[in-house]
Amino acid sequence: MNELLLTHQATIVEDWIDYNGHLRDAFYFLLFSHATDALMDRIGLDADGRAIHGHTLYTLEAHINYLGETRLGEQVQVFTQLIDHDSKRLHIVHHLYRPADGELLAASEQMLMNIASLAGRAAKFATGVEANISALLQTHRTLPRPGYCGRVIGIRR
Amino acid sequence: MNELLLTHQATIVEDWIDYNGHLRDAFYFLLFSHATDALMDRIGLDADGRAIHGHTLYTLEAHINYLGETRLGEQVQVFTQLIDHDSKRLHIVHHLYRPADGELLAASEQMLMNIASLAGRAAKFATGVEANISALLQTHRTLPRPGYCGRVIGIRR
Repeated sequence: MNELLLTHQATIVEDWIDYNGHLRDAFYFLLFSHATDALMDRIGLDADGRAIHGHTLYTLEAHINYLGETRLGEQVQVFTQLIDHDSKRLHIVHHLYRPADGELLAASEQMLMNIASLAGRAAKFATGVEANISALLQTHRTLPRPGYCGRVIGIRR
Repeated sequence: MNELLLTHQATIVEDWIDYNGHLRDAFYFLLFSHATDALMDRIGLDADGRAIHGHTLYTLEAHINYLGETRLGEQVQVFTQLIDHDSKRLHIVHHLYRPADGELLAASEQMLMNIASLAGRAAKFATGVEANISALLQTHRTLPRPGYCGRVIGIRR
């Protein structure tokens, strides 16, 4: 886990709890959304980078597996692995852990697209951003491929 | 769309907007989460039903495709199609629409699991609940299978 990026840390707050007393499904996704913001910072698409390049990232598609529950007041962390990229897209997996017992609470595979903000259209990564992504992939491609990748939803009979 | 269940209606609020001025990815999922609550009501797992049966639904797995943006103050609706079920699981697709122009903004395929709340374990649907689910599937299985079903995330080369 050490080689993955620590992209978010948070404490579960009351607004995120459902009638079961657990983190509501959508708020797992909010933790991953903030992790994506941190990944953007990491590759040079922080607020300054977005202004300079006129680019931002949109989430095109996401898959999430719910593996464990978490409750009010618990501390959680997101670790992110870059799986692949091309000139416009990032393929990533976010992992939500509870550091107190090391339990993996959820995994989310996502495809993110670089967007030219004014045109609102897909665009190639800026040169400096692509260099950061390539350097990150050099490290991450030596790691094992995460288990929650390439999944299809369905009832098998 | 008329045969699908209208499971949620909302107006986009300021707290849900990201730095791009659009609905943040996680809050699409919150709209779908509330739609799942309404689906639970529809099949007899409202608060009374949960108390009587000691059952609830957990989201096991979800896939979401982001298709369009929505902004502060816009009205949106979720329509839900039941795709399949077995004795413990529901396979559904939620669709997020903007009724003003009829645009499909997102689709989310999900697998939901019936859980015995005290044991925290998967359990068969209660008889009355299963009857409601079967009746719903009778209607929904005659509808076309939605496009955003069975998807896999990945960069193809």
